[in-house]
Amino acid sequence: MAEIQVSPIKQMEYRASKISDVVSLAQGIPSFDTPEVIKDNVKAAMDADLVARYSLPQGLPELRDMISQKLAQDHMFYDSETEIIVTCGAIEALSATFQSILNHGDEVVLVSPSYASYPELIKVAGGKPIFADLVENEGWRLDVTAIEKKISRKTKALLICNPNNPTGTIFTKQDLTSIAELALQNGLFLVLDEVYKDFVYGEEPFYFLAQEKKYRQNIIRIFSLSKSYAMTGWRIAYLHSAAENIVEILKVHDSLVTCAPVVSQYGAYTALQRGDGAVKEFTQVYNRRRNLMCHRLDKMEKYLTYQTPGASYFILPKVLVRQGSDSWKFCINLLEQAKVALVPGVAFGPSGEGHVRISFGRSDDDINLAFDRMEKFFEYL
Amino acid sequence: MAEIQVSPIKQMEYRASKISDVVSLAQGIPSFDTPEVIKDNVKAAMDADLVARYSLPQGLPELRDMISQKLAQDHMFYDSETEIIVTCGAIEALSATFQSILNHGDEVVLVSPSYASYPELIKVAGGKPIFADLVENEGWRLDVTAIEKKISRKTKALLICNPNNPTGTIFTKQDLTSIAELALQNGLFLVLDEVYKDFVYGEEPFYFLAQEKKYRQNIIRIFSLSKSYAMTGWRIAYLHSAAENIVEILKVHDSLVTCAPVVSQYGAYTALQRGDGAVKEFTQVYNRRRNLMCHRLDKMEKYLTYQTPGASYFILPKVLVRQGSDSWKFCINLLEQAKVALVPGVAFGPSGEGHVRISFGRSDDDINLAFDRMEKFFEYL
Repeated sequence: MAEIQVSPIKQMEYRASKISDVVSLAQGIPSFDTPEVIKDNVKAAMDADLVARYSLPQGLPELRDMISQKLAQDHMFYDSETEIIVTCGAIEALSATFQSILNHGDEVVLVSPSYASYPELIKVAGGKPIFADLVENEGWRLDVTAIEKKISRKTKALLICNPNNPTGTIFTKQDLTSIAELALQNGLFLVLDEVYKDFVYGEEPFYFLAQEKKYRQNIIRIFSLSKSYAMTGWRIAYLHSAAENIVEILKVHDSLVTCAPVVSQYGAYTALQRGDGAVKEFTQVYNRRRNLMCHRLDKMEKYLTYQTPGASYFILPKVLVRQGSDSWKFCINLLEQAKVALVPGVAFGPSGEGHVRISFGRSDDDINLAFDRMEKFFEYL
Repeated sequence: MAEIQVSPIKQMEYRASKISDVVSLAQGIPSFDTPEVIKDNVKAAMDADLVARYSLPQGLPELRDMISQKLAQDHMFYDSETEIIVTCGAIEALSATFQSILNHGDEVVLVSPSYASYPELIKVAGGKPIFADLVENEGWRLDVTAIEKKISRKTKALLICNPNNPTGTIFTKQDLTSIAELALQNGLFLVLDEVYKDFVYGEEPFYFLAQEKKYRQNIIRIFSLSKSYAMTGWRIAYLHSAAENIVEILKVHDSLVTCAPVVSQYGAYTALQRGDGAVKEFTQVYNRRRNLMCHRLDKMEKYLTYQTPGASYFILPKVLVRQGSDSWKFCINLLEQAKVALVPGVAFGPSGEGHVRISFGRSDDDINLAFDRMEKFFEYL
């Protein structure tokens, strides 16, 4: 296991926590507290002696029913009894999935740049991550041909984060369909991580590939409550797929965590039932912060260029000064000299190098303070 | 992954949940609610906006400090910064440990009978479980020679549950020391699962092998808040070991769950700080129920013999009637005909066959009702 590492995002947060007066736009932590309505109902569940004991490994039946109903609103039809597992966050959902579907040495094709923890959890599952680059100058477009070229006899799955962390890209229906066809034709699993699907800033409704019956056996879709409902600390998410996949993933999930924390399952139930207002409110604020960040970035065009994110609360600008070519070194300099924590782009795959990830999940004040400091930092380089 | 299965304990609970009016002494669920003092402090943490966000992967610093202090009370000295990880239950602690220390094909020697999920999580980690039998007619004694014989060139770790689930055995200091010496001499990890260490019914204080400095590099010790503080639903536990082991396990833990649920971490903090009274109270009640159960078993000596458990809330009687030789079939008959759910002994390893596990974690009423039904069941066999 020497080849795997603690997520660079957390390494950066840990370094930042050791320096006073740092402003961090690093880890993707919502600035908001969990909505009161969720906390109130969790307290009621605690009072009613509902949280002390294990749930079934797949989760509370009423929560799975609620998930099934919410999925149906987006035209995804999954049976609450046999096709849904409540998990201890999206990371556990992904780990249980890959530990279930991968044999030792199997390959998973994923895009670069994409979420930093993917390669690590694929490696822990005994698999090998294979990167296919996104097309940066076309708004970090999915390159279906590049993905197809990476498929080998050892490939077991494709992994797509949509909207994509760290680029904030919403992949097009057409490109997603091409990827699904690749999965179908090659007998591959298509793992879809859609944890940012609620933070979408355009007019176009988000397209859910998991609504297509044709790909039901291939698709394993993951959604987390963490971002949409400001619940990262609660470790609560779910996955859904065809029953024959779920029965296998459930065994691994059971042996990883027994069940998701029950207190958080009650939180998730209320979030799905009554949290829509909070999600809308958060989305409006994040959109405003996105515009603020783009405005601040526009003023730094000598130093940073960027593709406008259509979703999520991340942006991945390219660093134009020579120091930025080693993004780890650059971020450590920025942290130590300007007391601003960002995540080095190389954390997100080979083609992330030369970039930095900035989160606009944090407060306006933090964003403005970080950019004030960065402007000075670049001027004195 | 087809060779692994959902825990038979949960399979039995699931079957039981589909039949009305079943009394279950199957899964090890405490009959108590989580103590009020713990719930009150969790609510306060929620009100103070402390639970919404991720903690560091290794857990909240104040919780790790508290764990370090509690360990020191039992003469186990571990640094809160580098030698402790807060986990999502003992199962996640075990999975992170084995996924960190095992390479594909490595062997883990464990005793039979022992906890049902061990073989599964070892297999998920790419390892192979190798059983060494306990000596039933000497009170399920550890057989050091039997364990030694199972050690091969492929052995990477020994796994001991002490007190042992499902037999309730407290292993002796002498036998534990012999096992530790085996680990030391053969360069093996010794994984100690001590989640039942608080429910001990004799006068003798519980002996912690992890207090011996000599074995620090070998021992990885796991403790869960689930049983002692009636918190199974919260999914909260911790592990500790020498720093060089922790740094590797932390990477896997990070990629499995990011961090333990923060709401549960606040619960754990209060449990360790102020839960001693509750633990004492639970232990007294479980001891009384143990005596009740032994009393009921004594009246059924024609059908069941047992070794008196010194700890935990489990007992593993041998079934003397011919039907009991297939413990799965026997338990399903008992469930369907007498509406009593127990766990088939074969779930706990080859030498568990011919036995059933009965939990006295449940209420007196449930215990009496289950035994009334079982008496009739055996009489009409």
